[in-house]
Order: sequence, then structure tokens, then C-alpha cells
Amino acid sequence: MILTVTLNTALDITYRVGALRPHTTHRVSDVTERPGGKGVNVARVLAVLGHETTVTGFVGGATGRAVRERLAEVSGVVDALLPVAGPTRRTIAVVDELTGDTTQLNEPGPQIAPSEWGAFLDHYEELLGAASAVALCGSLPPGVPVGAYAGLIKSARSAGVPVLLDTSGEPLRRGVAARPDLVKPNADELAELTGSHEPLRATQDARRRGARAVVASLGAEGLLAVTPEGRWRAVPPAPVRGNPTGAGDSAVAGLLSGLVERLPWPDRLSRAVALSTATVRAPAAGEFDRSAYHDLLERTVVTSAVSMA
Amino acid sequence: MILTVTLNTALDITYRVGALRPHTTHRVSDVTERPGGKGVNVARVLAVLGHETTVTGFVGGATGRAVRERLAEVSGVVDALLPVAGPTRRTIAVVDELTGDTTQLNEPGPQIAPSEWGAFLDHYEELLGAASAVALCGSLPPGVPVGAYAGLIKSARSAGVPVLLDTSGEPLRRGVAARPDLVKPNADELAELTGSHEPLRATQDARRRGARAVVASLGAEGLLAVTPEGRWRAVPPAPVRGNPTGAGDSAVAGLLSGLVERLPWPDRLSRAVALSTATVRAPAAGEFDRSAYHDLLERTVVTSAVSMA
Repeated sequence: MILTVTLNTALDITYRVGALRPHTTHRVSDVTERPGGKGVNVARVLAVLGHETTVTGFVGGATGRAVRERLAEVSGVVDALLPVAGPTRRTIAVVDELTGDTTQLNEPGPQIAPSEWGAFLDHYEELLGAASAVALCGSLPPGVPVGAYAGLIKSARSAGVPVLLDTSGEPLRRGVAARPDLVKPNADELAELTGSHEPLRATQDARRRGARAVVASLGAEGLLAVTPEGRWRAVPPAPVRGNPTGAGDSAVAGLLSGLVERLPWPDRLSRAVALSTATVRAPAAGEFDRSAYHDLLERTVVTSAVSMA
Repeated sequence: MILTVTLNTALDITYRVGALRPHTTHRVSDVTERPGGKGVNVARVLAVLGHETTVTGFVGGATGRAVRERLAEVSGVVDALLPVAGPTRRTIAVVDELTGDTTQLNEPGPQIAPSEWGAFLDHYEELLGAASAVALCGSLPPGVPVGAYAGLIKSARSAGVPVLLDTSGEPLRRGVAARPDLVKPNADELAELTGSHEPLRATQDARRRGARAVVASLGAEGLLAVTPEGRWRAVPPAPVRGNPTGAGDSAVAGLLSGLVERLPWPDRLSRAVALSTATVRAPAAGEFDRSAYHDLLERTVVTSAVSMA
């Protein structure tokens, strides 16, 4: 199975309102709830692609129970979340029906006790034993050490399990130094890590910091990959409009499934771009349009990227 | 005991954010949760005043479990909520730390099935047997008939239990016609019911529509009471600044406790104004400042109101 780790799982709530006006009262016309956090989103896409997937991380409180109840309805995803005392965070996306724009409110997540973190490390080691690959995704809840991902990467490497890291800030900086097989920063994360806003230069720099391969997600410009096997750019066939929520998570699922299936890099990248683009196009945030995916897969263009070095 | 009915209970969530800017992402710095809905707020204040209080209404889903867990922590309030299939609504108050202003997002509430409404009517009849007074508070969730409060008022009257109604719109219009002992509309509700924006005229009109007594809450101008025993105005000693959330519910608790204690009207009104003002002044929404309450109680001025008739 493929293991995805979401230390800061979430109950993702979407509200539709007529128009969001600060300092007034709004009647919410429609409420949807989904189990969330980046690794949970990745797992959902992997399951649709036919990969047996297990999710782990922390879950707690009434919101945590809601996450587990809804996760149980997702076929192909096994729940190996670890219960903690603090409540799982909520994220609220308020969709303005007038403009279509979204306002996001993200809770910080539960305080994780040192004993809970210790229990997770044991649980993770055990899950690694059955994993063909692992993805470490998203932010760290309060109480988890900032070097957490570096430790989880080292454990995966010791167990011989390929490991992908998708996070930001200091956890990304420390994680990259622990030599993961793949990191997938977006343009902002890459610039924060390397100080460079030039994508190819920054992607190469990120790789020099320790990652075996770096795939940068550049929004409408697609993906830029710098790997030991070569450098590629993969771009969607046409500009897309829609909701980018979850597009990066779909790209991670594309890359990880391609790695497990031992696809050549160009095929992994076209899959990741097609999944990501099909997610932007889908009407519901984080879902993807399967017929659009198959169409996009055929039309995504992957080209060799010229080195700056 | 005093019974409060909240058909549309809520999990009241308060978020603090630096500044709310539509169409951006916000990190919530502080999250608080309380069991909510008007009748639950009334019960909490009644319990602080030393009255044994029972809350009923509907509760369901993960949010409903959270409401019950938090209600169990409130001493003096007995939970007689009826479980339903649909999830209890959330309300989100987003407090902007820059301006202190609040943006409110209110979910609509669960769909109540006809069988659930029928079960509630039996449950309510049973609770009435032990009640010294009953307050019917707030909006109706989807599926509850618009004449619901009229029916609940008739049952209370048949059981000889004094009944207070605090709602708005068509449920208020129909409820008033069923002859409750007391209604407590605010200025907007009163204007919607009577078509008049002149408080004394509108309050007298509301009474002619069937209520035995009408106490209108007029914000900073305090309360205006039109009763068979006389007409009074009760005003806070000085203008107050703060958060008006829950001020009306505190006024209801003041009026209802005064009714059960058989206080003269001027004493009921000064209690209601003092509680309401102490609630506006308290730092947390819906709480009240007890020392401020006792001080305000002595200084609230109640005067006879001249009739327009």
C-alpha cells in the first residue's frame, strides 16, 4: 500500500453565501463537509487511481470523529489515524456566490503532547513495514517538533521506502536536508526555501539542498522537474479556469502513483499535470473530473528543460 | 424547574483573526466553542441566577454531540434535548482583532422529519408536567411547521404553565395569536410584526394581537413593557459599549426568573435591563459580568410609560 501522512488533518467545511460582507450576518445556503488535510486529499486521488492507500496522522475530538466517519465512506482508503486528546482543526471555505471567490478560515490544529508524538513514531514505523511509498504532507500541528519530517524521512529511508515531502517553511527546509526522494514545492515555497524567484534556478538549488528529485508546481505553467534522470517541463494543453484547491495534492498523487508503478519521468509528470488540471476544472473543491483527466493526459506536453548550470 | 425550548440549537464557534479580508486565507488565532441557540443561552443565565433549568429542542450529528458535551459542563442546566438524524447547525462569529467587529456565518440547521417533530411534541408535553414556566426561543429548523410555536403555546396554556415567546417573522406572528403570557420582540421584530416603527404604538399593537404582556427590547434605550398591570420603561443608567450578542437572551432570563419569583413588573424589568447590559459589557459574547450586574441592578431606572391610546 501507499502511505500518506497528514499530521494536521482537518474537517474541511465549505459554506456558500450570497455575498460575503465583513461585519454583517450571513445565512449560509449550503454546507458541505469533507475529511481534509493534504495527505487525506492525496489518498483520495490515489484510491481513485486504483492504489490501495492508508492514511495516518492525528485525529481528535468531535471534529476528528466527523473526519473518521466521512473517511469511512471513501472506498479504497484505510484509516490508520492515531487518536489524540486535542480536537482536529476545521477549515472553513466561504464561497461568495456573487463573485465565485473563496475566503478561507483555517484553525491552528490541536496541541500534540510529547507522549502522543512518541506514540505516532512507533505507529509510523509499523505502517512503513507494509508501505511501497510514503507521502508526508502539509503543516505541523502545535507541539510537533519542527524537525518532525526530517525524522520521518530518515525512518523511511532506513526502511527502504521511497518518500515524498510536500510542506512549506522550516519543516520543508529541515526535511529537504534529510534527503527525501522527492519534494513538490509550489512557486512560493520554492522561493522561500531558496531565495530565488527564477523557477529552474530555484528548483536546481532545492535539489542541491538534499532532495533526490524536485518537482516544482508553477500553477498555470505546470510542473518543472529536476531529477537524476533529467529535467522536464510538463504543461497543460490550454489555460484552465476553476478552483485551484487540491490541485497540488492531485499532482502529488500523480507523482507518487507513477513512482510506485515505475513509470518513466515524462509519464509521471503528464499524469500529475493532467490530474492537477482536472482538479482545477472540477466543480467541487478537491475533486477531479475523470473524463477531463483522461482527455488531458493525452494532450499534456512534456519537454526537456534546458539547464541553467 | 424552568423549561427553555431551542428547536434550532447550535454549536456557537468564535474565531479571532487579525483582520478579515474577503477572498484571502486567514489563520485563526483563537477558537472557542459554546453550546448555543437562544434558549440555551437563556438557560445558562437562569442557572447562574439560581433557577433549576431544563433545556429541550433538537440535537444531532457530531456538532450535536459537541453541544451536549459542553452543556454537561454547565452546572444547573439539565439536558433534555431530543436526538435527531440531521446535524445540529454551527454558527461562526469571526471577530476582527483590528476593528473589534464581528462577521457572522449561520448554518441553516438540520432537516426535521415529521416523525421527529411528532416525537418532540410528546417529549415536550411530558416536560411541561414539571415546569414552572417555559420559554420558546429562536428560529425554527427546516421541516418544523411554521405554526409550531402556536401549538407549543397552546399546550403550555392547557397545562397551566406560563409561556414566554422570543422569535421573529411568521413564527412570531402565529405564536402571538396563540396568546402567550409574554413576548419579547426587539425593535426590528416588532416593526415586522406590526408595521409600526413607533415603539409604544407597536408594543401596544403586539399586545392587541394576543400576547398577555409585551416587553420590547430597544437596544441602548432599554425595555418597554405593556402589561395588564401597567406600562413601564426601563433604561440602563448609562450608555454601554461592548458586544450585544446574547443581550436579548439575558433579558429573557431576567423576565422569566422574575415571573417565576412573582416579582412586581418594575423589579422584573430592572433585572432584565441589568442582566442585558451586563452581557453587553462582558468580554466574552453571551457571558455576563456578575459584579456589573449587581451594580447595574441598583442603578437601572424604571418609569411609567404614558399611553398613546
